[in-house]
Amino acid sequence: MAVLQIFDKLLQFPLFQGMSRDDLEIVAGHTRFGFLKLNAGKTVMKSGDNCHQLYFLINGSLKVRSFADDYGYHVEEQISAPYIIQLEAVFGYNQRYTRDFIAQTDVNFLTLDKEEVVRLTEDFLVFRLNMINHFATQTQKQMRQVWYRAPQSLEDRVVRFLTQRCLYPAGHKTFNILMTRLAEEVNDSRLNVSRILNDMQHRGLIELSRGKIEIPQLERLLYTK
Amino acid sequence: MAVLQIFDKLLQFPLFQGMSRDDLEIVAGHTRFGFLKLNAGKTVMKSGDNCHQLYFLINGSLKVRSFADDYGYHVEEQISAPYIIQLEAVFGYNQRYTRDFIAQTDVNFLTLDKEEVVRLTEDFLVFRLNMINHFATQTQKQMRQVWYRAPQSLEDRVVRFLTQRCLYPAGHKTFNILMTRLAEEVNDSRLNVSRILNDMQHRGLIELSRGKIEIPQLERLLYTK
Repeated sequence: MAVLQIFDKLLQFPLFQGMSRDDLEIVAGHTRFGFLKLNAGKTVMKSGDNCHQLYFLINGSLKVRSFADDYGYHVEEQISAPYIIQLEAVFGYNQRYTRDFIAQTDVNFLTLDKEEVVRLTEDFLVFRLNMINHFATQTQKQMRQVWYRAPQSLEDRVVRFLTQRCLYPAGHKTFNILMTRLAEEVNDSRLNVSRILNDMQHRGLIELSRGKIEIPQLERLLYTK
Repeated sequence: MAVLQIFDKLLQFPLFQGMSRDDLEIVAGHTRFGFLKLNAGKTVMKSGDNCHQLYFLINGSLKVRSFADDYGYHVEEQISAPYIIQLEAVFGYNQRYTRDFIAQTDVNFLTLDKEEVVRLTEDFLVFRLNMINHFATQTQKQMRQVWYRAPQSLEDRVVRFLTQRCLYPAGHKTFNILMTRLAEEVNDSRLNVSRILNDMQHRGLIELSRGKIEIPQLERLLYTK
């Protein structure tokens, strides 16, 4: 890939935002990016795989599958370029992916070894601050969650359960979960949960089938109330 | 404070761990640390205050007060040196403290302006990696929380409510919360919550008074089951 093309692709990612044209040209020209092209249907990585590279999704879209800790249910959603796969997994205590990523369309990645990422944080102040600010913001947002008032109606609890488990707060989602498990998670009876879900289906917010809840547009769940 | 003393104090903090003796001497000698001494009872900062410095608690202990988003309840606990106050608040989207910190005993701080922190991340690879790894680990831990199975008994739900809202998973804690609010938060009746709390009091795990739950040792709540 030509330096100019890499340059254009990097501009799409918040990690590189605010860098001067000169700096970005140096990054594009002097950093050892890898290139990866995968056909639709191929697995990019599985939950538990070691993470020693950053994957910048520059074309196409991915199916992301996230699992409950005990694998009692899982969630599928779609993520489109530009997207960096689990930036936090290349550092810290647990340097493994915690979700499955599968090519939904043909996809292209730029890849960057961890050593190169560390070198960029050394050479470029803006890159370093972007990365630190990204992590600090993520931490701040997640630390707030616990202090929000618990939802008071069963429907609100179900909606919070669903939205808290999605990477991206909009678009199509599929929850592979039995109603008994959902009832346990929101602390209510299976019968009440079934009633609420059927009511939500009636209003076109979700579609139910055995062991599955399809959400055509998550944003409608959040804003129709 | 002499360079040698600063040196010794810095060694206690994970942010500086792994740095060579030479590097630490440079940090201790060439970084513009501030010094702050406060008497017991003085407020160090309040929730909502701007954060443009790191505070390294090097002597004494602090009372920390954390608030529900709607100020419907709050939690008090104690933190002892060595401790850095809300490292994540000096970067990211919301550069404000989100808790009150009050001197419980006479306390001493080393302080460090944000610009100096950024300079340290530039000059010292190990410091930079320590900081990035700290944030990544925090993010990883918090992202896991949502995927744990919901507790199935009311007592487990109460215990999870209490422990999730503490900074440090041991020691004495005071929850200033009405039973009706706790009942809402754990999604059960006031009567059932009252019954469980009284049972826990009977077992010596907590002490109840009006609008208040004292926990003598949080670790006992976690490990007596």
